[in-house]
Amino acid sequence: MVERDNPAAGVTVEFQPFGRRVPVAAGATLLQAAREAGMALLSVCGGAGICDSCRVRVVCGDVSVPSPHEREELSADDLGAGYRLACQARAHGDLVVDVPVESIGAGQRLQLECDTRLAEPTRGASGRDRAVRALDVSVAPPSRGDLRADATRLRDACSSGGGRPLPVMPAPVLATLSGALREQSWHARLALDDERLIAVLPPSTRLLGLAVDAGTTKIATYLLDLESGKTLAAEGSVNPQVSHGEDVVSRIAYADTAGGSDVLHRMLIQGINEMVGRLCTTAGVAAGQIVDVVLVGNTVMHHFACGLPVRNLGRAPYVPVVTDSLALAARDLGLEVAPGARMYLPPNLAGYVGADHVSVLTAVGPPPEGRTRLVIDIGTNTEISLLAAGRIVSCSCASGPAFEGAHITCGMRAVTGAIERVRVVGEEVRYQTIGEAPPIGICGSGVLDAVAELFTHGALDRHGGFRRDHPIVGTRGGQGAVVLASADATGHNRELVLTRHDVTEIQLAKAAIRTGIDLLLGSTRLPVEAIDEVVVAGAFGSYINLASARRIGMLPDLPPGRFRQVGNAAGAGARQMLLSVARRREAERLAGSVEHLDLTGDSRFTDTFASALGF
Amino acid sequence: MVERDNPAAGVTVEFQPFGRRVPVAAGATLLQAAREAGMALLSVCGGAGICDSCRVRVVCGDVSVPSPHEREELSADDLGAGYRLACQARAHGDLVVDVPVESIGAGQRLQLECDTRLAEPTRGASGRDRAVRALDVSVAPPSRGDLRADATRLRDACSSGGGRPLPVMPAPVLATLSGALREQSWHARLALDDERLIAVLPPSTRLLGLAVDAGTTKIATYLLDLESGKTLAAEGSVNPQVSHGEDVVSRIAYADTAGGSDVLHRMLIQGINEMVGRLCTTAGVAAGQIVDVVLVGNTVMHHFACGLPVRNLGRAPYVPVVTDSLALAARDLGLEVAPGARMYLPPNLAGYVGADHVSVLTAVGPPPEGRTRLVIDIGTNTEISLLAAGRIVSCSCASGPAFEGAHITCGMRAVTGAIERVRVVGEEVRYQTIGEAPPIGICGSGVLDAVAELFTHGALDRHGGFRRDHPIVGTRGGQGAVVLASADATGHNRELVLTRHDVTEIQLAKAAIRTGIDLLLGSTRLPVEAIDEVVVAGAFGSYINLASARRIGMLPDLPPGRFRQVGNAAGAGARQMLLSVARRREAERLAGSVEHLDLTGDSRFTDTFASALGF
Repeated sequence: MVERDNPAAGVTVEFQPFGRRVPVAAGATLLQAAREAGMALLSVCGGAGICDSCRVRVVCGDVSVPSPHEREELSADDLGAGYRLACQARAHGDLVVDVPVESIGAGQRLQLECDTRLAEPTRGASGRDRAVRALDVSVAPPSRGDLRADATRLRDACSSGGGRPLPVMPAPVLATLSGALREQSWHARLALDDERLIAVLPPSTRLLGLAVDAGTTKIATYLLDLESGKTLAAEGSVNPQVSHGEDVVSRIAYADTAGGSDVLHRMLIQGINEMVGRLCTTAGVAAGQIVDVVLVGNTVMHHFACGLPVRNLGRAPYVPVVTDSLALAARDLGLEVAPGARMYLPPNLAGYVGADHVSVLTAVGPPPEGRTRLVIDIGTNTEISLLAAGRIVSCSCASGPAFEGAHITCGMRAVTGAIERVRVVGEEVRYQTIGEAPPIGICGSGVLDAVAELFTHGALDRHGGFRRDHPIVGTRGGQGAVVLASADATGHNRELVLTRHDVTEIQLAKAAIRTGIDLLLGSTRLPVEAIDEVVVAGAFGSYINLASARRIGMLPDLPPGRFRQVGNAAGAGARQMLLSVARRREAERLAGSVEHLDLTGDSRFTDTFASALGF
Repeated sequence: MVERDNPAAGVTVEFQPFGRRVPVAAGATLLQAAREAGMALLSVCGGAGICDSCRVRVVCGDVSVPSPHEREELSADDLGAGYRLACQARAHGDLVVDVPVESIGAGQRLQLECDTRLAEPTRGASGRDRAVRALDVSVAPPSRGDLRADATRLRDACSSGGGRPLPVMPAPVLATLSGALREQSWHARLALDDERLIAVLPPSTRLLGLAVDAGTTKIATYLLDLESGKTLAAEGSVNPQVSHGEDVVSRIAYADTAGGSDVLHRMLIQGINEMVGRLCTTAGVAAGQIVDVVLVGNTVMHHFACGLPVRNLGRAPYVPVVTDSLALAARDLGLEVAPGARMYLPPNLAGYVGADHVSVLTAVGPPPEGRTRLVIDIGTNTEISLLAAGRIVSCSCASGPAFEGAHITCGMRAVTGAIERVRVVGEEVRYQTIGEAPPIGICGSGVLDAVAELFTHGALDRHGGFRRDHPIVGTRGGQGAVVLASADATGHNRELVLTRHDVTEIQLAKAAIRTGIDLLLGSTRLPVEAIDEVVVAGAFGSYINLASARRIGMLPDLPPGRFRQVGNAAGAGARQMLLSVARRREAERLAGSVEHLDLTGDSRFTDTFASALGF
């Protein structure tokens, strides 16, 4: 955060939820202020006021009246609620501005994922019910007249104060005991839970926890201070297992080769260990301070993390080894943390609805009494839960890798240089890339945007076919296609196009998701309008333009105000469970009450899917 | 056991405790019968009837009257109790003959160690209180309509019969669950204890247990059938750690080098794993059937087995990491047994009185009401316990490595070719070697015998000096010395001698042990005659000639009938604890009640030691 002395400045703009404040000259646009504050706000049209990608909400303060552009791009409802285009609205006085997730560039979102409000773990819990507690002890040193074993003298020191007796000391903790007591001159901070001693640390050491969201593609890790509950550092990294396959199906196949299962287990653990190393460097702490771990992931990642075979997750009827919650010795699994630390994993629901979705549901929490909530975690596999009238019905749909940029002609992951937003303005295609770098490909949110915009502007028909008579539709290889970026624009002599094939991939993906939503509604006999809130979670869910998703029918056409993008809710849930035993029990109860809907076993599946393919 | 058709045979001789029966011609000596039966009976004088090394006891049957030689070598009491010289006594009818441990050659004793009566574990316990039980289950296979996780369907199958709920499934067991259930067509024999599932085995699999006596020099392992309690196979092997030092002091020093501790831990475990492999081959079973493990050892071996640092066992005040009993996950320590198996270790008493001595005390059991018992486990370090009037007082004495053949001029371990018995007959030194091979050195029992015989025959004075005027005393390097075997006899141009230095080593060793005995008696204010029974345990204790040990004052001069050699009682105790939870609790209670006497801290130590040096 930059606080500069600006002689011309008369006003201050504060951007939520980042908490960034910046002084600007009175009359500056909010887009200028955002740039000044180092915020990567989207601006597909380049500030011309002809798209709505820079939508923000003015919470309070004196701001210019809406411009004609704003009145065109924003609905009266939105304007009434304070929504404005950042490139048009000008600050006349001090302002507080709320930035919706969908107006933030991908680079910034990663950051947001680490401080989304969901991570606040105190909802409904005291916030002091950690699984691991600290106990400070002073131990009598041995002498000629006192030959008790180190473990005995520690036990005696703990119970002498009338405290609870010391629980079991696992072998790896015992192995550190004698050295630690002597190095620390017989004073120690113990980390312990109800069942075991976890670590013998130097006095005043902060106890830390590690939350891990192990995704098929990406791993997110969070280092938390167990006393304050604060996130000290966060790290995102590609799952190193991708070298053995992009999706879970190819990893399951690799695991079935000789030694493959063990290789994938160790790769995942090693990847986490490397991230832990970086987290600890960032926070200036030691990995031995990590006394508790929570890991969430889909069922396949869950099994890999625990060293369990995934074989039967790859063949019908897709039965996991275990669905109950687990608390395993982290060291035995290879995690380089405190010697006695356990790794807690919330329950899985079924073969393809994993502990990560349980974590999302836990993070989001139950809807208010009498309200209906739809929770969608979009990925290669999309999990959807409908929470209504005390019931939770969940399903899993094979939405495929199109949203990851795979199987798309010019597709790529959401990294720097990927087209992440597309707008059609008249006969021109405009786009914005991640990091505002020259375009090198199109990521999932860009493809989704492009399809929605081309349909809205009449370049695609209801069935996904290009209208050859539309001015922006050309042909490539005899097929209809639209050029998103010319070879000149990309700077590497290769144009970026969207083809009929790409449109079909998006149609299949969105139909899969919509079918899941519709069949869940069918199973609960609720009309789509009954949904009071749609919570969109997950990496991809955070990047997409919800308006585009609604326009192509992937999400129900409900008022925009009913949608909420919550970022990495699985990671937030993991952090909540790391800080609260009550939250773990909640996740277990929740998992026990979920009704699983097997979509492919549903007689309505084929018809529903077919009708969901069109726009 | 050989059962041959011998036309001349009229009688059968049965040797106890081996249970070997052999038909021989009427009138054959018991020594001939023993050889016929493949028994390595000692016979230092070669059957001339001029030593008592082939002493046996005729339990019942028709035998020749004592010869003049027997009346000379054996006391009237011994003769009255049925003791005879095997080379003199002849079988006139069917006989049952008991072979005392001290009359058996070293080769045979190893075998005896495996079926000593101490290993019978049912003393005082029902014999059915195993730590691990079997449970046979049939599990419903998954189907489209039954997508429960494998762990859930196993749990449900267990509780459906109204049985106890299934305990925790550790990660390594979970990892085998899905494969095992499918390979076994959904039928399984579970091995489980009260806290966890240990293995998922094919139906009808025998559950096995492993008992380990991890000595500094030698490791003894026993494979037991947990149902019948029978020992299926036993293996003895040199502790592979000897490559990093003969004694615990040098191993502690090596463990203090970088990575040394881990190397020694893995060497020990690897050594046990290799023995397990051989045990399983012998018994025709799989290592995965081993669902329970008990390990006993001195405190240093105990710590190495558990992966605990031994550093503070090598520096005053010699404090162990832990003395309480432990039950650790065997797999985590590297043992290749059933995935959930625990390794139980009984408590240690103090830095130098280890779990192996607790195991000896457990195996031997308490003395009858009102009786006093001395239990001695002789080794490099000798542990002694005095059990009297409900008290147990224990101490440890640094008897040194002389009994292992170390620091002795022509010393060697008790292996083939070692002189194990010495008799002085007139002016001639007679000896017997292990395996009756040409002599290549002298092992501890041979040195002890030689010193006792030389003192008895006037070649040594009370202070351990050679009497130069004695006909068998010569000089070597200007010092008094006795040739035990000439260069001709050894066949390798090197004579085997006993020097003043060797006598001193034995004096130091025996004085250390006798000091321990005397100070224990002093601390309980009991006279030596109050000892009703002396139990001599341990590898070395089984090899020695007790008469020699009494003659040089290492053991108290009590009537021979009060002494009992029990072989590897530590291993027997381990087997008892493997078969009985009650026996484990007994070991723990026993350890909790032991009073430890720190000899070097005793003011009477120096005087007592000095007076114990002479003969």
